[in-house]
Amino acid sequence: MAKTDLEIAQECVMEPIGKVGAKAGIPEEALEPYGRYKAKLSFDFVKSLENEKEGKLILVTAINPTKAGEGKSTTTVGLGDGLNRLGKKTMMALREPSLGPVFGLKGGAAGGGYAQVVPMEDINLHFTGDMHAITTCNNLVSAIVDNHIYQGNALNIDPERITFKRCLDMNDRELRRVDIGRGAKVNGIKREDGFNITVASEIMAALCLAEDLMDLKERFASMLVAYTMDGKPVYVRDLGIEGAMAMVMKDAILPNLVQTLEHNPVLIHGGPFANIAHGCNSVIATKTALRLADYVVTEAGFGADLGAEKFLDIKCRLAGLHPDAVVIVATIRALKQHGGVAFEDLKEENVDAMRKGCENLAKHIDTIQQFGVPYIVAINEFATDTEAEVDALKAWCAENGHPLSLSQVWAKGGEGALDLGQKVVELCEQENHYAPLYDLDDSIEEKIEKIARKVYGAKGVEFTEEAQEQIRLFTAEGWDKLPICMAKTQMSLSDDGKVMGRPTDFTITVRELRPSLGAGFIVALTGNVLTMPGLPKHPSALDMDIDENGRIVGLF
Amino acid sequence: MAKTDLEIAQECVMEPIGKVGAKAGIPEEALEPYGRYKAKLSFDFVKSLENEKEGKLILVTAINPTKAGEGKSTTTVGLGDGLNRLGKKTMMALREPSLGPVFGLKGGAAGGGYAQVVPMEDINLHFTGDMHAITTCNNLVSAIVDNHIYQGNALNIDPERITFKRCLDMNDRELRRVDIGRGAKVNGIKREDGFNITVASEIMAALCLAEDLMDLKERFASMLVAYTMDGKPVYVRDLGIEGAMAMVMKDAILPNLVQTLEHNPVLIHGGPFANIAHGCNSVIATKTALRLADYVVTEAGFGADLGAEKFLDIKCRLAGLHPDAVVIVATIRALKQHGGVAFEDLKEENVDAMRKGCENLAKHIDTIQQFGVPYIVAINEFATDTEAEVDALKAWCAENGHPLSLSQVWAKGGEGALDLGQKVVELCEQENHYAPLYDLDDSIEEKIEKIARKVYGAKGVEFTEEAQEQIRLFTAEGWDKLPICMAKTQMSLSDDGKVMGRPTDFTITVRELRPSLGAGFIVALTGNVLTMPGLPKHPSALDMDIDENGRIVGLF
Repeated sequence: MAKTDLEIAQECVMEPIGKVGAKAGIPEEALEPYGRYKAKLSFDFVKSLENEKEGKLILVTAINPTKAGEGKSTTTVGLGDGLNRLGKKTMMALREPSLGPVFGLKGGAAGGGYAQVVPMEDINLHFTGDMHAITTCNNLVSAIVDNHIYQGNALNIDPERITFKRCLDMNDRELRRVDIGRGAKVNGIKREDGFNITVASEIMAALCLAEDLMDLKERFASMLVAYTMDGKPVYVRDLGIEGAMAMVMKDAILPNLVQTLEHNPVLIHGGPFANIAHGCNSVIATKTALRLADYVVTEAGFGADLGAEKFLDIKCRLAGLHPDAVVIVATIRALKQHGGVAFEDLKEENVDAMRKGCENLAKHIDTIQQFGVPYIVAINEFATDTEAEVDALKAWCAENGHPLSLSQVWAKGGEGALDLGQKVVELCEQENHYAPLYDLDDSIEEKIEKIARKVYGAKGVEFTEEAQEQIRLFTAEGWDKLPICMAKTQMSLSDDGKVMGRPTDFTITVRELRPSLGAGFIVALTGNVLTMPGLPKHPSALDMDIDENGRIVGLF
Repeated sequence: MAKTDLEIAQECVMEPIGKVGAKAGIPEEALEPYGRYKAKLSFDFVKSLENEKEGKLILVTAINPTKAGEGKSTTTVGLGDGLNRLGKKTMMALREPSLGPVFGLKGGAAGGGYAQVVPMEDINLHFTGDMHAITTCNNLVSAIVDNHIYQGNALNIDPERITFKRCLDMNDRELRRVDIGRGAKVNGIKREDGFNITVASEIMAALCLAEDLMDLKERFASMLVAYTMDGKPVYVRDLGIEGAMAMVMKDAILPNLVQTLEHNPVLIHGGPFANIAHGCNSVIATKTALRLADYVVTEAGFGADLGAEKFLDIKCRLAGLHPDAVVIVATIRALKQHGGVAFEDLKEENVDAMRKGCENLAKHIDTIQQFGVPYIVAINEFATDTEAEVDALKAWCAENGHPLSLSQVWAKGGEGALDLGQKVVELCEQENHYAPLYDLDDSIEEKIEKIARKVYGAKGVEFTEEAQEQIRLFTAEGWDKLPICMAKTQMSLSDDGKVMGRPTDFTITVRELRPSLGAGFIVALTGNVLTMPGLPKHPSALDMDIDENGRIVGLF
């Protein structure tokens, strides 16, 4: 029987984190250890790198995710290991997993097979506590807002217009909408609230876009929490708790160092949702890696329509990053699913369906081409792929002039990405015309329309009356010069999660806008985007256990 | 101007945690570092100590707390440092502070002045993440219970009889009572719930009474979460998630090593509320310390009526610990307040009021005498204490035959507790007739009556109809052989927080009982005990800040 990811990870004899750090040029005294195999980089060390020359930045993205699986994290890790095998000084910059999905269905997020980051259990559980710090920071704001109203409401806050929600790092649908302050008057003011999952919080987004602790404090101060009875915005700075919030985040702002199964250095830091937020690891970690390594491989959540668009339109623009190459990951299984094959039938060869599914891939390639960044298609091989399918895919790429690499990182680790690695190195030397797809000076509507037309392939955008009213309000407040963070289903290029492949002749409906002023973007919500997931009928938690020697089973 | 606790703590040049561990006989490889000045003891090392000889156990308790302050943690730390100065190999075993009160009013809980544990900021913030792990573990149960009902309710759980609440480590009155699952049907079942502060959760209590990880898993399995539609108890084991819960707690179960300002080793681990729970640090930490040191100084929450009673009736009994001496802490200021002086007038000499306030002290001494453990009164000196007051107190102790020591640990650290330390060493050699105050075979009513009469000085106990019904139910379920954990106001010996001094001729009203089957006790609630505090009008969070060098201000 094939080994599970957890079994493979547990077999790994990890190197002490000091040795991993040394490989990246990080001196022992710059590491704040968390156990023997995890460390935070010290505050002073991160600061000391500010003027270092930056290496090449490689983004790994994917087609729209399917149940079949694509392996974006796995490819990111495998590519990083592959580049190191090729003698290139390479680091990876990944997102921190959320505990919610770990207990639910998705499982861990540290790669798979022989392309994993370890210690896998710790990374998928509490890691170095960043997620918990964010939860605390977020819920401090809520407690202070409600307490302010309860203690006299000097700011004249309208309890029905509090925009800042509580959060928990848990898949808990029961908390999506709650009525709080019930019972006796001493239990506070009665009002509606809801919990986001922590990774969907604005605190997470702000952490991931901050340049340093003082910038983060300023972002906190700018966060909108409510409106007054006469409609004026109330910010965190009006409550005076940005200092306490920054204090709570003093360790969480520092990048976390871990290693791949092949002992190469990885920074894992920050993990905002790629629907409600921008879906990339922290700017601080990405820049730190770029200043330490010649090549940095990073990823963005979900498909290129969400993660890559936001990476290129939001993160790179705001942080002044210059992406050198994009890897677009797909699997033959997933392409077949986009081509109309049911999940149960994926084992059977189906060249036609695969070719049809390539339309989804083609749209994401088109998007990356519009951004002007050199790209390559990476097919993450599965044992069930047939020769005919592989040949047909090669032919499709050749016909359309798309560079391609077949990677075997799940089975072989870095060894399985030598070809991909070599080609990526070459891409990094190619001409590069990176530019965001819209101007910040465009109106809110124009920005959204450009994303919908250029990235989703939509024929237009409809704005609900509520959204139109919000656009007027936001523009009046001067918030319209911010980039747009689209909240859309990840399952489809359209805003209907059931539509696979490459839909055409559709419109996108924007039903609500939310100002994430601390993160520095306006969220545009399309369809019914959940910011608090639920658990499935058989949650993974039911299969997890630990024995008397501390050995874990059932964590995937 | 006098330095703040934080300033004193920040001036301390800490020793690397490995050196602190070495002082306690802990080898470097047995430490899992969290930064340079905190570490968890390794799973294997804790296990390896099982058969080691145990040292002397000294409990620090106090009179009923007042606004004037007593300094129980400060005395605990100072006494530990003092014993080390006397050449006694001594460790301290303390509770972890909750973040909620840190943002609120109470501030930190790592001692004060020159008798502190460091790194003070980290200990009072996220420390090593134990509190967050407990929050996660607790809320996993809630998410699984609600999801179980939502997905078909195979166990036939009555949504109106779910006894297990959610929790957050925050002072947030808004969450005391909430209606969850509001809105659309996909948001889950509509029902009432409430959040406890994390330290009031049963998960915390169970952690602190567990012998090891497998015992903790078994305690989780035994936890009552709800009743079925036909009134049968539903336990965690029926949901099958005790394995996942234990996994979540794999690091949180390990004691945390830190140091005093004088670089002596301290274990800080677990911190259950002393009203709704038993108010002592973990059994694992206490036993580990006893196996490493010749003397262990520990404390229990609030006054002797709550903390010491539970330490002696619950913790020591269940864990097979044998307490060797008890230190009862008071201040002249606090005694004056018990004697009727208003907080504003405490600066003025008032010998009569102090002598009157000694009645409160006398009752707690009486309690410790009933437990049969040698004791000493420790007066934590304040600059405002007058010679006449001190003399009167000495006279009162002499008249009544109570051993006394004046300690100056706040101003002098261990140097200020040399006399106290010497006397405590002598107490540990005295005859000792420790025995709990009630038998486990007593009925629930008998146990509660014994505590109320012997410890509070009440003339009797009234049980509401609800409580009587619960006693019948619990007895029928066979839960009546557990010890009792009283939930009572800490401010008074009675169940009315406004009554100071030593009340007589009063009864205690038990209004509700709750089975904490995983912790292993029955909670008896008297008066209106809050398990989720609120924030004050001016929360401490408003004064906290951090600068560009990571330096914190305003954390007390």
